[in-house]
Amino acid sequence: MSGRHVLALCGGVGGAKLAAGLAAVLPAERLTIVVNTGDDFEHVGLAISPDIDTVVYTLSGLSDTVRGWGVADESWQAMAQLGRLGEPQWFQLGDRDLAMHIARTHRLREGETLSQVTASLAASLGIAAAIIPMTDDPVRTKVETDDGVLDFQRYFVAEQCRPVARAIGFAGALEAQPSPGFAAALAREDLGAVIICPSNPYLSIDPLLSLPGVRQRLASLAAPRVAVSPIVAGQAIKGPTAKLMTELGASVDVVGVARHYHGLIDQLMIDEADRAEAPAIEALGLAAVVAPTIMRSHADRVALAEATLAAAGV
Amino acid sequence: MSGRHVLALCGGVGGAKLAAGLAAVLPAERLTIVVNTGDDFEHVGLAISPDIDTVVYTLSGLSDTVRGWGVADESWQAMAQLGRLGEPQWFQLGDRDLAMHIARTHRLREGETLSQVTASLAASLGIAAAIIPMTDDPVRTKVETDDGVLDFQRYFVAEQCRPVARAIGFAGALEAQPSPGFAAALAREDLGAVIICPSNPYLSIDPLLSLPGVRQRLASLAAPRVAVSPIVAGQAIKGPTAKLMTELGASVDVVGVARHYHGLIDQLMIDEADRAEAPAIEALGLAAVVAPTIMRSHADRVALAEATLAAAGV
Repeated sequence: MSGRHVLALCGGVGGAKLAAGLAAVLPAERLTIVVNTGDDFEHVGLAISPDIDTVVYTLSGLSDTVRGWGVADESWQAMAQLGRLGEPQWFQLGDRDLAMHIARTHRLREGETLSQVTASLAASLGIAAAIIPMTDDPVRTKVETDDGVLDFQRYFVAEQCRPVARAIGFAGALEAQPSPGFAAALAREDLGAVIICPSNPYLSIDPLLSLPGVRQRLASLAAPRVAVSPIVAGQAIKGPTAKLMTELGASVDVVGVARHYHGLIDQLMIDEADRAEAPAIEALGLAAVVAPTIMRSHADRVALAEATLAAAGV
Repeated sequence: MSGRHVLALCGGVGGAKLAAGLAAVLPAERLTIVVNTGDDFEHVGLAISPDIDTVVYTLSGLSDTVRGWGVADESWQAMAQLGRLGEPQWFQLGDRDLAMHIARTHRLREGETLSQVTASLAASLGIAAAIIPMTDDPVRTKVETDDGVLDFQRYFVAEQCRPVARAIGFAGALEAQPSPGFAAALAREDLGAVIICPSNPYLSIDPLLSLPGVRQRLASLAAPRVAVSPIVAGQAIKGPTAKLMTELGASVDVVGVARHYHGLIDQLMIDEADRAEAPAIEALGLAAVVAPTIMRSHADRVALAEATLAAAGV
């Protein structure tokens, strides 16, 4: 390894798994994980950052790997009682998970930035790597659908992605700044690689790219930029990526992912199942790197992290 | 019964039991329960109203009668996780109880008054009687001790009443107004009785009396005013009343209670164990009414409520 710094961009579940692999492989001081905050929202007065929480729970080993989201050994007593008190029930708040939202909300109201809050909460749970929100300003993903413009969590959780999506927007992005940690990582002289984790390109990565200056900086970066495809064999490994790509007019395959990131990456990691698509990716001027990209175990995460870093040459 | 209205003033546990008895005996439209908010405070950003919660939990049947506070079938998952996240542990927040604080905090921040929030939360739990905070303004009980001036919850929960109390103050009381419901109940033409529930006179009832106009109004009221002694046979039934009365120079007996409420009540209900003290009370110009005042069962609460209403002649 080169000793140079690695910047990982990620959203929730799939991205968090690779982030955990990178954190297992790299010394903490060599890794910056920048996380989507476009999914953030307020629910019963609590500041909720779903992707940050997923990354924090995944890296701390607290996540519920069976249910696929939230904290293991979760219970739902507060949720049931909130229902009795007439509060909305469409977004699930587990008792253990609630602690995170309560602590975050409290500290934000006391004047800390989301970056500061995230750093201290992650440190409390023993995470050494830097987990950084993409911005400390409010940016909110909106999905324009046939049923109107929906807040992301409404679309994703309450409506379970049923409305047909026509476009996606990131309210507040133009007025927002990349967080200090994100800006600093992009500006590092020893930046050795940017890894775009296998998260939804439209919902989880585009919010980061929509922040002022980020797309331009990525496009002009000398360091290798490697994305890991969240699409394997024409299907999303997790979540609504495939349905959404179809509705937005993209081809649901690794070539569609390559086109989406065109100009921003040098290499696309694709699964062995998509080996036949490599020439089409290379025809776009990108290197196609084949590796097992489905992460079922911790060993899978570590192996994919190592393959990604090897592709980037760090 | 006369059909006239009953105004009950109360604090936490002991007072809440009599309030529950009154609610069981009186039609909802004839009862107003005004509750101390001097114990209210913010903890990890949540607005907590301990006495209101105790009254709400007691009247809704949710309270934990074994532990003596909070909600039955409680769990502590959020609390444990808050501890891992570095939040303070000295004030216990159960998972079911948290729902109340989250909902209250949310609604207060949305602009509802504490009166409105309390009314809607109590109604959600099926409570018909009016439970009304003494004020919608911030009033905070402070205990001046040999260790300095302590916020009430610090004194009561964190310090477990160990510091020697020298005086008690109610910060904000002079600038506060009685809540609309409290003011309206005091002004009712059909007010048939005021019942001071067996709560701590210094910590739970004095805050209500410290609000502008309340003491004068009570002192001049034509309707019968009956207090139920929280002291039985020289001991507090619950909580720090006895220790506090000693430290503040009061005699820890029903005569001490009678002196404390002198000029504000017509009758003091005392337990059968204190029958011998009746002449000393009557020497102060108050009627002493003897009844079983220790409430172990629901039947005890109902019986004491009936005895109190009978004494008041409503």
